[in-house]
Amino acid sequence: MAEELLLLGSWGSPFSRRVEMALKLKGIEYKYIEEDLTNKSPSLLKYNPVHKKVPVLVHNGKPVVESLVILEYIDETWKDHPILPKDPYERAHARFWAKFIDEKSSIAGFKACCWGEEKEREKAKEEAFEKLQFLENELKEKRFFGGENIGLVDITGNIIGYWLGVFEEASGVKLLTREKFPKLCNWADEFVSVSAIKENLPPRDKLIATLRRRFGGVNASK
Amino acid sequence: MAEELLLLGSWGSPFSRRVEMALKLKGIEYKYIEEDLTNKSPSLLKYNPVHKKVPVLVHNGKPVVESLVILEYIDETWKDHPILPKDPYERAHARFWAKFIDEKSSIAGFKACCWGEEKEREKAKEEAFEKLQFLENELKEKRFFGGENIGLVDITGNIIGYWLGVFEEASGVKLLTREKFPKLCNWADEFVSVSAIKENLPPRDKLIATLRRRFGGVNASK
Repeated sequence: MAEELLLLGSWGSPFSRRVEMALKLKGIEYKYIEEDLTNKSPSLLKYNPVHKKVPVLVHNGKPVVESLVILEYIDETWKDHPILPKDPYERAHARFWAKFIDEKSSIAGFKACCWGEEKEREKAKEEAFEKLQFLENELKEKRFFGGENIGLVDITGNIIGYWLGVFEEASGVKLLTREKFPKLCNWADEFVSVSAIKENLPPRDKLIATLRRRFGGVNASK
Repeated sequence: MAEELLLLGSWGSPFSRRVEMALKLKGIEYKYIEEDLTNKSPSLLKYNPVHKKVPVLVHNGKPVVESLVILEYIDETWKDHPILPKDPYERAHARFWAKFIDEKSSIAGFKACCWGEEKEREKAKEEAFEKLQFLENELKEKRFFGGENIGLVDITGNIIGYWLGVFEEASGVKLLTREKFPKLCNWADEFVSVSAIKENLPPRDKLIATLRRRFGGVNASK
């Protein structure tokens, strides 16, 4: 049977772009289906009845959802160009930081830029600095979180390496400065210049325009 | 070098009990260190500087944190009695449900029992019913979420199979009824009767007393 690999995604979503980045890094062909998130398709509702969200990877008719779960699935299914290390301890270490980015640092960063009242944003800013400092320290002298090559943490970190800068520009709030976070800034520069990553970044202008439409009210009140 | 395996945990925490359950299921010996969470030890702060929480598994001096990350580490390090399936698709499926329990269903359940004002609790109750229904459906005709044997989803589900009932009793709010969720109730009965699980359940009375001390005010306002 010929392999059938579909990705239900959304152009501006860092979560669905993560999946594309991993597939591109591994050189796997897939068919991409853009979802209109304001009018979800029957396929999306069928394949992800629990969360009804992108990304959904459908492999020979079987759906896999949640970006971190999909990344592990891809790595276990197509072994070339591994994105997780082999050693169990290093794997646990990578999973820890991917989870940290997903649940802690990116939420604080986006809250600081866009959500809530000014007082809440100030609090979120402090929190974002604290979380970003952990990532700064974790980079040590490494080129990528994954070492010499892009791995799970880097791909998960697309939300910091690219989207955070876009949120900053759209909102006028600056978090990731070279002065405070030199290693993270260097990492972000390196990250977005890798071709499998660069090809999967949504156009900055389009993303900024979308964010300004969505969050304009909040920022206008500053 | 002799293996050194320490677990920093807390007797009443479903998260640290998950680790003990997995270690017991696999027959791995470890040294348990009870943490006083009101006065955290230098070891806890050293080994988990990011979250400063239990559980922390320290294997030959190297710490692994976050219960789901630890469970995967244990399964990759000690292969006997696997708690994750072999097939990548089934592994992804298990990871999805473990994440769902961790992030969605248990939070809704505990909110319904204990947190916030009555209006919020009513909303959380509806949400908890919806999440529990997904788990009810997922069980199908299986004995455990892992099939014939306890796996990752069952262990993660300890929070529903045991702690939720304790929260219910402490708060007087009932969510998991046999009428609404017959399969989940049967599963919970089977789950807590497996010896490696039963040995790792904190005493019900002690847990209820602790919860009543902590949440008494909220429930008294009903």
